[in-house]
Amino acid sequence: MKILVLNGPNLNLLGTREPGIYGRETLAQIMQRLTEIAALQGMTLEAFQSNHEGELIDRIHQASHDNVAGLIFNPGAYTHTSVALRDAIAGVALPTVEVHLSNIHAREEFRQKSLIAPVSTGQICGFGALGYELALTALISHCRKEQPAT
Amino acid sequence: MKILVLNGPNLNLLGTREPGIYGRETLAQIMQRLTEIAALQGMTLEAFQSNHEGELIDRIHQASHDNVAGLIFNPGAYTHTSVALRDAIAGVALPTVEVHLSNIHAREEFRQKSLIAPVSTGQICGFGALGYELALTALISHCRKEQPAT
Amino acid sequence: MKILVLNGPNLNLLGTREPGIYGRETLAQIMQRLTEIAALQGMTLEAFQSNHEGELIDRIHQASHDNVAGLIFNPGAYTHTSVALRDAIAGVALPTVEVHLSNIHAREEFRQKSLIAPVSTGQICGFGALGYELALTALISHCRKEQPAT
Amino acid sequence: MKILVLNGPNLNLLGTREPGIYGRETLAQIMQRLTEIAALQGMTLEAFQSNHEGELIDRIHQASHDNVAGLIFNPGAYTHTSVALRDAIAGVALPTVEVHLSNIHAREEFRQKSLIAPVSTGQICGFGALGYELALTALISHCRKEQPAT
Amino acid sequence: MKILVLNGPNLNLLGTREPGIYGRETLAQIMQRLTEIAALQGMTLEAFQSNHEGELIDRIHQASHDNVAGLIFNPGAYTHTSVALRDAIAGVALPTVEVHLSNIHAREEFRQKSLIAPVSTGQICGFGALGYELALTALISHCRKEQPAT
Amino acid sequence: MKILVLNGPNLNLLGTREPGIYGRETLAQIMQRLTEIAALQGMTLEAFQSNHEGELIDRIHQASHDNVAGLIFNPGAYTHTSVALRDAIAGVALPTVEVHLSNIHAREEFRQKSLIAPVSTGQICGFGALGYELALTALISHCRKEQPAT
Amino acid sequence: MKILVLNGPNLNLLGTREPGIYGRETLAQIMQRLTEIAALQGMTLEAFQSNHEGELIDRIHQASHDNVAGLIFNPGAYTHTSVALRDAIAGVALPTVEVHLSNIHAREEFRQKSLIAPVSTGQICGFGALGYELALTALISHCRKEQPAT
Amino acid sequence: MKILVLNGPNLNLLGTREPGIYGRETLAQIMQRLTEIAALQGMTLEAFQSNHEGELIDRIHQASHDNVAGLIFNPGAYTHTSVALRDAIAGVALPTVEVHLSNIHAREEFRQKSLIAPVSTGQICGFGALGYELALTALISHCRKEQPAT
Amino acid sequence: MKILVLNGPNLNLLGTREPGIYGRETLAQIMQRLTEIAALQGMTLEAFQSNHEGELIDRIHQASHDNVAGLIFNPGAYTHTSVALRDAIAGVALPTVEVHLSNIHAREEFRQKSLIAPVSTGQICGFGALGYELALTALISHCRKEQPAT
Amino acid sequence: MKILVLNGPNLNLLGTREPGIYGRETLAQIMQRLTEIAALQGMTLEAFQSNHEGELIDRIHQASHDNVAGLIFNPGAYTHTSVALRDAIAGVALPTVEVHLSNIHAREEFRQKSLIAPVSTGQICGFGALGYELALTALISHCRKEQPAT
Amino acid sequence: MKILVLNGPNLNLLGTREPGIYGRETLAQIMQRLTEIAALQGMTLEAFQSNHEGELIDRIHQASHDNVAGLIFNPGAYTHTSVALRDAIAGVALPTVEVHLSNIHAREEFRQKSLIAPVSTGQICGFGALGYELALTALISHCRKEQPAT
Amino acid sequence: MKILVLNGPNLNLLGTREPGIYGRETLAQIMQRLTEIAALQGMTLEAFQSNHEGELIDRIHQASHDNVAGLIFNPGAYTHTSVALRDAIAGVALPTVEVHLSNIHAREEFRQKSLIAPVSTGQICGFGALGYELALTALISHCRKEQPAT
Repeated sequence: MKILVLNGPNLNLLGTREPGIYGRETLAQIMQRLTEIAALQGMTLEAFQSNHEGELIDRIHQASHDNVAGLIFNPGAYTHTSVALRDAIAGVALPTVEVHLSNIHAREEFRQKSLIAPVSTGQICGFGALGYELALTALISHCRKEQPAT
Repeated sequence: MKILVLNGPNLNLLGTREPGIYGRETLAQIMQRLTEIAALQGMTLEAFQSNHEGELIDRIHQASHDNVAGLIFNPGAYTHTSVALRDAIAGVALPTVEVHLSNIHAREEFRQKSLIAPVSTGQICGFGALGYELALTALISHCRKEQPAT
Repeated sequence: MKILVLNGPNLNLLGTREPGIYGRETLAQIMQRLTEIAALQGMTLEAFQSNHEGELIDRIHQASHDNVAGLIFNPGAYTHTSVALRDAIAGVALPTVEVHLSNIHAREEFRQKSLIAPVSTGQICGFGALGYELALTALISHCRKEQPAT
Repeated sequence: MKILVLNGPNLNLLGTREPGIYGRETLAQIMQRLTEIAALQGMTLEAFQSNHEGELIDRIHQASHDNVAGLIFNPGAYTHTSVALRDAIAGVALPTVEVHLSNIHAREEFRQKSLIAPVSTGQICGFGALGYELALTALISHCRKEQPAT
Repeated sequence: MKILVLNGPNLNLLGTREPGIYGRETLAQIMQRLTEIAALQGMTLEAFQSNHEGELIDRIHQASHDNVAGLIFNPGAYTHTSVALRDAIAGVALPTVEVHLSNIHAREEFRQKSLIAPVSTGQICGFGALGYELALTALISHCRKEQPAT
Repeated sequence: MKILVLNGPNLNLLGTREPGIYGRETLAQIMQRLTEIAALQGMTLEAFQSNHEGELIDRIHQASHDNVAGLIFNPGAYTHTSVALRDAIAGVALPTVEVHLSNIHAREEFRQKSLIAPVSTGQICGFGALGYELALTALISHCRKEQPAT
Repeated sequence: MKILVLNGPNLNLLGTREPGIYGRETLAQIMQRLTEIAALQGMTLEAFQSNHEGELIDRIHQASHDNVAGLIFNPGAYTHTSVALRDAIAGVALPTVEVHLSNIHAREEFRQKSLIAPVSTGQICGFGALGYELALTALISHCRKEQPAT
Repeated sequence: MKILVLNGPNLNLLGTREPGIYGRETLAQIMQRLTEIAALQGMTLEAFQSNHEGELIDRIHQASHDNVAGLIFNPGAYTHTSVALRDAIAGVALPTVEVHLSNIHAREEFRQKSLIAPVSTGQICGFGALGYELALTALISHCRKEQPAT
Repeated sequence: MKILVLNGPNLNLLGTREPGIYGRETLAQIMQRLTEIAALQGMTLEAFQSNHEGELIDRIHQASHDNVAGLIFNPGAYTHTSVALRDAIAGVALPTVEVHLSNIHAREEFRQKSLIAPVSTGQICGFGALGYELALTALISHCRKEQPAT
Repeated sequence: MKILVLNGPNLNLLGTREPGIYGRETLAQIMQRLTEIAALQGMTLEAFQSNHEGELIDRIHQASHDNVAGLIFNPGAYTHTSVALRDAIAGVALPTVEVHLSNIHAREEFRQKSLIAPVSTGQICGFGALGYELALTALISHCRKEQPAT
Repeated sequence: MKILVLNGPNLNLLGTREPGIYGRETLAQIMQRLTEIAALQGMTLEAFQSNHEGELIDRIHQASHDNVAGLIFNPGAYTHTSVALRDAIAGVALPTVEVHLSNIHAREEFRQKSLIAPVSTGQICGFGALGYELALTALISHCRKEQPAT
Repeated sequence: MKILVLNGPNLNLLGTREPGIYGRETLAQIMQRLTEIAALQGMTLEAFQSNHEGELIDRIHQASHDNVAGLIFNPGAYTHTSVALRDAIAGVALPTVEVHLSNIHAREEFRQKSLIAPVSTGQICGFGALGYELALTALISHCRKEQPAT
């Protein structure tokens, strides 16, 4: 079973800037660790980061050709502005877990609305890099059983 | 280390109504399983459910006297209407993980705004009963290290 | 067939205050008369009033265990603020007729929006105590035939 | 005592279209039955339907010359758009009971605001054709006693 | 002459938490001092705190049976969400002085709107515990003379 | 210690117009009484009224040169429209108590928002001329101790 | 030179209802007087009233075939709801003076917005029947000289 | 009988700037002509223009001491921003006719709301300098008879 | 197969007014040409124009008795204000193509919202008289195959 | 004469996903057919699809160097979010026909606002792939005659 | 060539208060330096500061009589509230450069809207005292060439 | 010291289209001139334009590796829609001066809100190509001294 982890704009800055706030771990390190955790459960994990909305859409489309079982998606700032990414996820109809490092519902008003949420299985935010691991657990669980509920 | 799991209004209906949608597991069963998982990590877990806003506030206040290390909180419908619960959490200043069974950001407009989020560490929603387990992982991690970031 | 009549906050003041406006009939007297009318049609009627949102939720939950056929509900001020009561009614899925003594659509803007209406069969407002009798007729009729329409 | 029942746009379609939803009863049949019920109480009932806002206004004006004691009014879609009908009712100052077949407060946002409500005695909605009978009871009661209250 | 001082949710935390900000005085101490000041003016003062909206409503109703001359009310977070408390005050028609420890008009947008204000005589906010003393002066003065004006 | 009492537009009409509503006391009389009360506590009180926004700003600036310890300010209608007065108070950084004769939160929507509140210590409204005396007590108290809290 | 005076819905009630408020003069009497005043200035005046939006539109269209020099228009409640009347006036491009008996800007929020104003020369409101005479003066003046300005 | 004509900010520019649009008549000339028309009807007319909000307020206050029978007021830009002028007019309770040279309801959104209208008898706009003459007619008529109506 | 082309208010002015903008073709000429194009495809076309909302509703109702296969509808200004026309189309459940001569989405804000669109198959706007021909093609195509998609 | 057909994000998914809803025709097939129809009228047609906002802008700029006579543009999700595409079209000033497969005005609120419409000639939506053919007809017609009107 | 530099309310406080934030330079010193820079380019510079909206309007009017070539205007808090100043600038039609010391678009919501901007050539904000020098360069440039563009 | 000048979408059209409005200078020419001015002050200037949001983000990230001292940024249409660019600037924490050729605050409502402003030092708009020169002066000044103030 293959899983795709998508990271949106500015997440490539992780670990190299403001380490006092965001920690010293780079995105590469987080993805490496996540790949190892996935491997322990017999999953293949691919990671992709881009600052380009179009490249993220292309990558989501490609996922549906690659037998990807589900997506873990941190859309960064595109969370709040990209109807195109929302339509891409709805279009390929792959189960998607939305992740945010920070608690977006505790930040500026415009960051509290996610255009991605209505096409996602669920959302995890506010737990830093740990959020990806929680998302992995949730996605694997989701792929194995029925849709959870209210 | 002691953890308090709070469940708000109507969550007592879980498992006994509309099992086709919400599954056949009752809240008691979910809390029982969560208690066992916590015990494996050396944590004591207490669960409390109430349909009364005031009782939930009282219980949060009491937690600060009981050496509770953190809260897992599914505020149910009070998520969207209770400034008093928000102030209670801010008042006792305990780390709090907000959980929702459903993906509230994919539902009616009025369910997408959480008054509790700005005083919580993070939010997990859309994964059904599994969300409590993810929250437990997140809370334990939070209590052991520094505050995560954006 | 059993019917539950629920009355929300401040309705206990009825008849004892401002009789020039609200009439001299107390809630107890109105409920007594309603019980008698119901009895004539072979219905058992129970009445419950509370100023506590949580108690009203508890009572709605209990109704679903008590073979109650339907609710007549005057939610008072909770009409406009309680998502929890709305979820309680949706949760037990009992037919519910919403009643208001005054014509709430002719009052302040914030009283014109009912959070209870979307989970109710219908709404009757503006006819004082008579509204309960109309609601009783409507509820009995509803319980005997198909869902009415637009 | 004479009562006028006014029905607004598209209500002439009743019974002949979508009988699965709206039932097989035509507006004429409903009005016929209502006339008989009124007669039992010694009331004369006239029914008027029009798709024309202007004709409804004219008919309301005429009512005030015809010794009509009160109106039962289902304004259909004009409920939400006609300030002119509101002013007509306010102008003739006849007691008016607003009726809707469906529960308008459970439908689209724009159907939840009634321009007619602030000049009506009360509102009954969601009970199908039965709503007219409830309105008749309410109007007769209203004409016989004092104005009900909050 | 008897005066009732009502305190809403979370005010029981006063003095025991964040003393650097809120001071070391508990609510009990503040009420004790206020009682003494009232006694000097020949007034009996009763204090009641609850985190339960329903208990506060019950207590207001009871006040009207107990010959209470007026209320001093710090509704805490219910200031911004409780139509039921507003209706309770309007229902018993006792003169009410609204008090807030902080200057709510200098805080978050949602704290600047008081649902209680339209049924109160006046509002005092921003002066900490001293606000209760100012309110006492105002209430006594109000009970002795005519309604002040714009 | 010197205190400045500022009164904004139309407050010069006090006492001479609509005495049935506002009482027969003129602004001069109120200020005279306030000066005497202040004197009893060893304070010097200066009063200034103007209908000119600019003159009020000038007077606030001057206060900071005159060793004024704090302001009591009834900004009248400028409460709701003057960012310039807000900036003047913030600029001179003198403790300011906002006073209104009427309960502005019980009046028109546009009177419920104060541009002055976010730069004031606290607000007192609804108590007529007595409000100035309460404000004096509050200001003296404020100048003597630490900043009060929520 | 011919002038058309249009009166919209419910204005036919004038003089016969609530004479204490609207005076005892009927619309016919007002129009008769206006015709005489116009005649003194060598103008022919036609008056038309309808409760039907469509008839008012038809009449405006016809005016452009009848060499009418300008319109005096009291659109009644259609002022606030009829884009069709606005387009009719813009379509025939006749100078139009909007008249209202009451001061609509001092009434309910929804009466303060005129859809007709942007296609009218000017607006006169609040002066009762005298408004028509002022409008006649304004229209005659307008037809004789250049377009007035800001 | 004395009438005061008040003109607000920038109206002193009239006639000297953009004569192609506003005409070549200065404010002085308009006021002169208006004075003569008033004199023919036995009225004394005083005109006052100021760009200062405070001076306009002062002048309105003074009018109530000078036996002025009513005001004609073109508040210019203060129409949309001055609560203080509104309160001044309400304070002196003199009948006031609001005049605007341009049709403010056909201009930018923010010019369509008049803060002065709710305290005025009526409003005349869009007729250039002629508007003052219409206002004079309306004011004299108003001072002689009863308040007109809706 | 019969098709009904409905034209709403002011469209009868077409061709006779402002030919520089709208062209010299009258509505009759456009409908004549459209009838001929329809005939070439073996369709019967009926055209109806009215300025009366009620007549348009009546005509839509009649269409469902006349075996009309579908509607081409230019609702003119009623596009933005008529819930009744929307309900009429939904009531008769005939496929409807909405046409506008101008690009309504490039005009005033209030013209960008169509109440008719949610009950129409599709919308064509901005192409002048050609729009009717495009609509005819679309409607014939629609009547012959399945519902198109997103 | 050359025409450019631009398709925005996710339209490359057409035909390969959810054929039950969107049909089995791929975008390539639709464009192929459109090219043939254009050729019959002596037009050259180029088709370009991209999920990248920037590539679509680049392609529009290039069109103005390539003697393209006009654009047919289905901006997909960028319809609602891209001011940059709007400015690109306005910048090259080529006639543009906006096409949508679905009736966007019958979908979610945020899909009803098109940022592209104000710079387009017209809009066609709701007719599936046929919409492109209608657009082609409209664009050719537009390029040959004068600008249509309201 | 003469240039007028206008400074609005509270800018007279510059340099004397909060020097840690605003620097130690007074407005007089900034204006002095600006005058010298202007002189080097052969320009005469006059500076005027007032806290009075009316005085600023008067000064703008006077500028048009004094052969002033253009304005540099820091309207302070009047930026956000004064339609009268906007009309004054539009009235005299002098080129105006708007300056703010702070970046108003990075501050409170209400400071991000400038009523002055729509009548100004351009806006410079966020550069402290340097902003006046940039404005001087821009204004001189503007007065010498054509209007710049988007 | 190195400075990066970034230009967003459609700015590559400068000088080649609508020269009557935007002038005949191309972006290359403006950047060339700016480079020369920078060189005179010992600065190296690099210019980059892209229509791709992602490329602009990439370039900002790269700047932080290239020892760039600050940015001059004209984000074009992305000013109003790109949270991702805002986050990029905040992420690299380089001083940024926002430039717009036109006065965006005098244009459509949606152009008056800049998402970039809250992370910029200041904003300059409305002065055409000169704006870049003013920005250069401001940026150099900023890099040499302390942060300016309100």
